[in-house]
Amino acid sequence: MSTKKLLILPGDGIGPEVMREVARVAAWLGRRRGITFDISEDLVGGTSLAEYGVPIREEVIQKAREADAVLFGSVGDPKWAHVGFDKRPEIAILKLRQELGLFANLRPAKVFDALVDASTLKPDVVKGLDIMIVRETVGGIYFGEPRGIETLPDGQRRGINTEVYTTHEIERVARVAFDLARKRQNSVCSVEKCNVMESGLLWKEVVTDLHAREYADVTLSHMLADNCAMQLVRNPRQFDVIVTGNLFGDLLSDLASMLTGSLGMLPSATLGAVHSDGRRPALYEPIHGSAPDIAGRGIANPIAQILSFAMLLRYSFGMQAESDMIENAVAAMLGTGLRTADIMSEGMARVGTDVMGDAIVREL
Amino acid sequence: MSTKKLLILPGDGIGPEVMREVARVAAWLGRRRGITFDISEDLVGGTSLAEYGVPIREEVIQKAREADAVLFGSVGDPKWAHVGFDKRPEIAILKLRQELGLFANLRPAKVFDALVDASTLKPDVVKGLDIMIVRETVGGIYFGEPRGIETLPDGQRRGINTEVYTTHEIERVARVAFDLARKRQNSVCSVEKCNVMESGLLWKEVVTDLHAREYADVTLSHMLADNCAMQLVRNPRQFDVIVTGNLFGDLLSDLASMLTGSLGMLPSATLGAVHSDGRRPALYEPIHGSAPDIAGRGIANPIAQILSFAMLLRYSFGMQAESDMIENAVAAMLGTGLRTADIMSEGMARVGTDVMGDAIVREL
Ligand SMILES: CC(C)[C@H](C(=O)O)[C@@H](O)C(=O)O
Ligand SMILES: CC(C)[C@H](C(=O)O)[C@@H](O)C(=O)O
Repeated sequence: MSTKKLLILPGDGIGPEVMREVARVAAWLGRRRGITFDISEDLVGGTSLAEYGVPIREEVIQKAREADAVLFGSVGDPKWAHVGFDKRPEIAILKLRQELGLFANLRPAKVFDALVDASTLKPDVVKGLDIMIVRETVGGIYFGEPRGIETLPDGQRRGINTEVYTTHEIERVARVAFDLARKRQNSVCSVEKCNVMESGLLWKEVVTDLHAREYADVTLSHMLADNCAMQLVRNPRQFDVIVTGNLFGDLLSDLASMLTGSLGMLPSATLGAVHSDGRRPALYEPIHGSAPDIAGRGIANPIAQILSFAMLLRYSFGMQAESDMIENAVAAMLGTGLRTADIMSEGMARVGTDVMGDAIVREL
Repeated sequence: MSTKKLLILPGDGIGPEVMREVARVAAWLGRRRGITFDISEDLVGGTSLAEYGVPIREEVIQKAREADAVLFGSVGDPKWAHVGFDKRPEIAILKLRQELGLFANLRPAKVFDALVDASTLKPDVVKGLDIMIVRETVGGIYFGEPRGIETLPDGQRRGINTEVYTTHEIERVARVAFDLARKRQNSVCSVEKCNVMESGLLWKEVVTDLHAREYADVTLSHMLADNCAMQLVRNPRQFDVIVTGNLFGDLLSDLASMLTGSLGMLPSATLGAVHSDGRRPALYEPIHGSAPDIAGRGIANPIAQILSFAMLLRYSFGMQAESDMIENAVAAMLGTGLRTADIMSEGMARVGTDVMGDAIVREL
């Protein structure tokens, strides 16, 4: 097996400091298991703006194309608001998704037994919760044209964005959801706003047709996005896999992960189509954002970033054993009662980013 | 004072059965307080489709224009899905909002002390919660052109919707939010997705400018829509007034009201601009939908519809005393322990729609 090419992009905000803990885990794998990667690291988002004046360079996108997998931190520090819409830090992740064709963002919302109390929801509502949200990430209103702000003859301004979805874009992401459901509870809920938007109407029709043609064994239901937001609060355990568009997926997956009380624990994967040579572009990142309010204070939870790395090892590098080891080490560390501020509860020991990273490496 | 013109539109699903309880409250006001209205009632949504083949007739819109206020039930029974997108029941409410220029939907999310336990959130997270969401309702992606589904040369289809917001549309709804905040906790959070959408960028700029020009005494903050969905779950009491566009408002207000555990209790008002003759078009409706799954079973909670009527009396008819009486009667009835299924908890007495309506009239 040739050495796997891993591109690491810490980003801005807490990205770099949680990524540092991943480096220690990777170093341990090299030292103790003789596993090495062909790692390169680069700047994106705010840190790239500071160094190069752009949120992501062409050569970084090229490196990402050539890598076997990308481990991403987070971007979005608002201190870069002055650079304008076309250069904002977020462009880094939006361009990577588009240029690599990373159309399916898999975002688990899972409640860890040890952390049931960290949720703001009642324990009996969320205990055992395990949802997977499949969010479309290269289409919809994020990328549709026309878009922009124009000035009207009377001096008023007008902001415009366009939501567009084609049969093909809907089918390929729905396929990912159905395939995942077959390995889980075999149930998919497709979410749109078909009572108001034609793009949602098409979404519902295409998912329904695909289901009838190829996935009749999977249970399929449909839900309006506003109702889904409510149902996630009322009774989240009714869901197994949710599949939805880019914008609804953005809100609903953040909502779902906050239900778990473990936002700082949740990794995600964004996948592209399998290439003719068998490779599949993939990017892994924590669900949480760059949290600039706590950046640089050494208190961020490194678990989501470390579990994103474990997910990468499993799905892109086929290293099940190592992935299991890391996940088990995280669980063991939690068992010893260490907690960062975001998941702190009574009787536990509050620690910072590096102490928690240390403790995870020690449990490996 | 001339007799006020009230147009009642029960709609479909549970609309008609909860509206029946309002009729009893209105009858009581006539009998005991000598207050009469010039009431007319008409069909909209599914019931209009059944009778007239359209979700709303031109003459109903005309009646609504001439009324001093409209009391709306709910529409959206999916059994009408076969009539197609252009005739769906939801057109009734969408057309009323547009034709009457009802641009500001005020949606409270309030936790009633007696019902704290009905929430799926922990009591210490939601006790005393009192948020007002101001949602823009005649613009955005709900109405923007171009829209529709087109077939491409290769046979694929493409669904399109357009989000459009102008300076004027943003300003007028923000003004409603700032004015409301001054009567509440004096704080407004403006919600958009300016890191991805230019319409959101314009939204943020216009709200910021208006604030600096006319409302510098109000505390203004900005939040991304995905973060807002999370913050509503994490710590909903951080908010006072939230102002946002049509689509985000749809999801976030449903989410916020579900947090309270009292969805069946919450009324809403949708207001237009004050006309030159001093009249202000207004429509009142419950926050819950038409709930076709429980329609006709006599178990729906009539409180939101009754409180919508109380809100109408207060804001459109200037009848503070009567509005207070109705709100107090609802509170007194809850104090006796009667509960419909949706707000049922241990030790309370479960009753149906009409028993609860009866009990409220008895407390008047
Ligand atoms: C950073 C931002 C552009 C991004 C998005 O909106 O997709 C983020 O919120 C996410 O969910 O990954
Ligand atoms: C019935 C539907 C068109 C409507 C909307 O989406 O605005 C409803 O969900 C609401 O929130 O009032």
